[in-house]
Amino acid sequence: MLPERVYAALEDVVGKENITASKEDLLCYSYDATNTTFMPDAVLFPATAVEVSRVVEIANTEKFGLIPRGAGTGFTGGSLAVFGGVVLSTERMKSVIEIDEENLTAVVEPGVITWEFQQDVEAVGLFYPPDPTSKKTSTIGGNIAECAGGPRAVKYGVTRDYILGLEVVLPTGEIISTGTSTMKGVVGYDLTRLMAGSEGTLGIITKATLRLIPKPEKVITMLVSFLDVAAAAAAVSDIIAARIMPSTLELIDAFSIKCIEEYDPERLKNVGALLIIEVDGISEAADKAAERVEEVCGSAGATGFETATDKHDVKNLWKARRSISPALFKLKPNKINEDVVVPRSRIMELMTGLERIGTERRLIIACFGHAGDGNIHMNIMYDRNNIDEATNADMAVKEAFELTLSLGGTISGEHGVGTTKAKYLDMELGPVEVALMQRLKSMFDPNNILNPGKIFSGSASDKKVPAPAF
Amino acid sequence: MLPERVYAALEDVVGKENITASKEDLLCYSYDATNTTFMPDAVLFPATAVEVSRVVEIANTEKFGLIPRGAGTGFTGGSLAVFGGVVLSTERMKSVIEIDEENLTAVVEPGVITWEFQQDVEAVGLFYPPDPTSKKTSTIGGNIAECAGGPRAVKYGVTRDYILGLEVVLPTGEIISTGTSTMKGVVGYDLTRLMAGSEGTLGIITKATLRLIPKPEKVITMLVSFLDVAAAAAAVSDIIAARIMPSTLELIDAFSIKCIEEYDPERLKNVGALLIIEVDGISEAADKAAERVEEVCGSAGATGFETATDKHDVKNLWKARRSISPALFKLKPNKINEDVVVPRSRIMELMTGLERIGTERRLIIACFGHAGDGNIHMNIMYDRNNIDEATNADMAVKEAFELTLSLGGTISGEHGVGTTKAKYLDMELGPVEVALMQRLKSMFDPNNILNPGKIFSGSASDKKVPAPAF
Repeated sequence: MLPERVYAALEDVVGKENITASKEDLLCYSYDATNTTFMPDAVLFPATAVEVSRVVEIANTEKFGLIPRGAGTGFTGGSLAVFGGVVLSTERMKSVIEIDEENLTAVVEPGVITWEFQQDVEAVGLFYPPDPTSKKTSTIGGNIAECAGGPRAVKYGVTRDYILGLEVVLPTGEIISTGTSTMKGVVGYDLTRLMAGSEGTLGIITKATLRLIPKPEKVITMLVSFLDVAAAAAAVSDIIAARIMPSTLELIDAFSIKCIEEYDPERLKNVGALLIIEVDGISEAADKAAERVEEVCGSAGATGFETATDKHDVKNLWKARRSISPALFKLKPNKINEDVVVPRSRIMELMTGLERIGTERRLIIACFGHAGDGNIHMNIMYDRNNIDEATNADMAVKEAFELTLSLGGTISGEHGVGTTKAKYLDMELGPVEVALMQRLKSMFDPNNILNPGKIFSGSASDKKVPAPAF
Repeated sequence: MLPERVYAALEDVVGKENITASKEDLLCYSYDATNTTFMPDAVLFPATAVEVSRVVEIANTEKFGLIPRGAGTGFTGGSLAVFGGVVLSTERMKSVIEIDEENLTAVVEPGVITWEFQQDVEAVGLFYPPDPTSKKTSTIGGNIAECAGGPRAVKYGVTRDYILGLEVVLPTGEIISTGTSTMKGVVGYDLTRLMAGSEGTLGIITKATLRLIPKPEKVITMLVSFLDVAAAAAAVSDIIAARIMPSTLELIDAFSIKCIEEYDPERLKNVGALLIIEVDGISEAADKAAERVEEVCGSAGATGFETATDKHDVKNLWKARRSISPALFKLKPNKINEDVVVPRSRIMELMTGLERIGTERRLIIACFGHAGDGNIHMNIMYDRNNIDEATNADMAVKEAFELTLSLGGTISGEHGVGTTKAKYLDMELGPVEVALMQRLKSMFDPNNILNPGKIFSGSASDKKVPAPAF
């Protein structure tokens, strides 16, 4: 529990109605998508950068951890108070300050919900591509902190690629501006992108200037069936190798298909894997790309090819895709979700390798995700109360990471390291790289106030995590 | 001069034929595009990251500055030995190690010439967009260190956007890997983009993994004439506001037009400003975009509109564009070239403001550049031996930066800070931001070995520049 002195100091900054330590409230800020819970000591709802800065100063004086939190949809525990401390929610900082239609830029506060922002910009013919599957709930601030991706990253890139500048409160309390409002800028070091994907450990984002692009004139959505996942994975490689640039190229394996809500047994009979493919651009370009996708998929052995003919169809298709992740719990009560990435030509090896690991470990490993950029979400399903299954699940994660790295890949494409991947950090990064990153963290945050226990918690920095003051 | 002991130690690393301290050789590595010269104490040509690492270790032991150098085409003195020291040329590290046609990636050494690499990838139907005007000479390593842009940045982004991973020798000698070989990756802090644009002050790039995209099927190049620069600038804003995404949108003012080689007085009669506009994509998309560009330019008062009909035409047009910068010396013997950027809707205000400054200071300020992303190359022409002109030129730079910043812009879009902009750094960045960047520099390079005197030389870090040991 927070000492009264600290509570009063924080209350003085944000106001009585914007701080809570009631058990019911704390519970609401104790979880994320990892299915684990850690109770914070308090939750704060500051409204401005100045308030955030004053809170950070108190945290440095009193030496407690501050955990920035958007919507808490992360898959790696980035917003969890693993050592207690105070959760700093950006919920009240939710203004779209400006959409500049002449310059194709926008200025937003961190608590803006990504999907709502996208609706706003699309209403004026503009487009903000990053589309994490959580977008209907997750926030721009959280997306930036994690460098979120999504299905459209294959063509449009990730959150990092749409940030022009940031306002950030440093872990030592100073408010800084990074980057520019312009399309280009190379004055000084790139602090903007150092913040992107830093998982709330180097600063708290209080404002972002984002780059927008014209909204594509036409989008064509296709659903392509294959007998098995190997054939679908081969089609993914063939599409990329054929120099087609789809705006989305999603793969869904058989386990995942079975979990889709509204699962239509008749329609999906004998379907061992699906690709959802979107192409976009001006009308003629989209049509031409769709034709070429159909050709390549045909040659790769597709057994079915449908084009979504109206908005309703498309909406249902994506609803089904988004439903996979939660629906997997039909298979088993617990899930380990990892978002590995391999070079696109190695997807087939990854998928067959994961199948082998699943068989050997007697586990269901359901795979789906952004195959177009080699980013597969592998979901190891197990029962936590079954010690044998839990042990095998743990071993399967390690084996899957070994496989991924042996194929030239990375253990996280968009979810980050957080707490869940921290113990595997050394598998991908060398000791010199980890030490350099830890020196960076220490330089920014000498008291280790900001989001302690994340990224490096499995390594030497463990020792530096402050004992919660209360 | 290098002490014999040091020379021998360096020779031992790179071999006798790959080190020189002869005056003739040093002269060749004493200049860049800033038209100033600084003689280094020696020039080294290492061939591998291990050699670079050993050289860096010697520099730390003997405390002398190391200045990494690509082709020396920079406009801000980034590759100059302003305090003496040893130039480390990447000339011998010029292998294209791999072009992976399946995964649309390439691995190159830093000394690869950008244009040659582009020819290689285009030969297999792929595309590496970053195209600094120096591309026929400049290197990938130099482009990364400066985060080079170019005409195509308006659609395709800058060098930073095409780097997946790097091999870097740190200023303390360790060889690190950053980033991934995959399209996505968020494991740990983004050291890749921290290196991009760090102007050789945080590390020496020894290898880069680059992202490629499919080569556009068709490119249409248009030359559009206007009565004056205000009309052309308005057309630029109109094109962006009309949601057209040209692949190039270059503006050339009247002074620059006069300097173009092969200047055709008949053809360019009454032309006060030109736009070179390119659109690309699949054939139908390019055609449609070109039509829309013609419409918008017509409404904006274009007095002439030509489409380059064959490759020869296009080549000549770009040759003329590239010839402007050197040809400006026809006007005056000295030039200050600055690459300011403003939001695209403010280009007209920038151009008219620069015209006013030129009139008031009795100087020719010739402007051209990447108007599509708001990045204008302003060239203040003067005679260094005329004290009055030289003083006015200096004042004009400051006034132009004040104007740029008042319009929401930045003082450098792609050239970097180097030495020439260092004294203006504080105009754009606040003291907290500069101090943070200096702490970063000190953390990476405690002995200030790497490229001393750059970025921060006008500020507090001056004191930290090591006295050359010899």
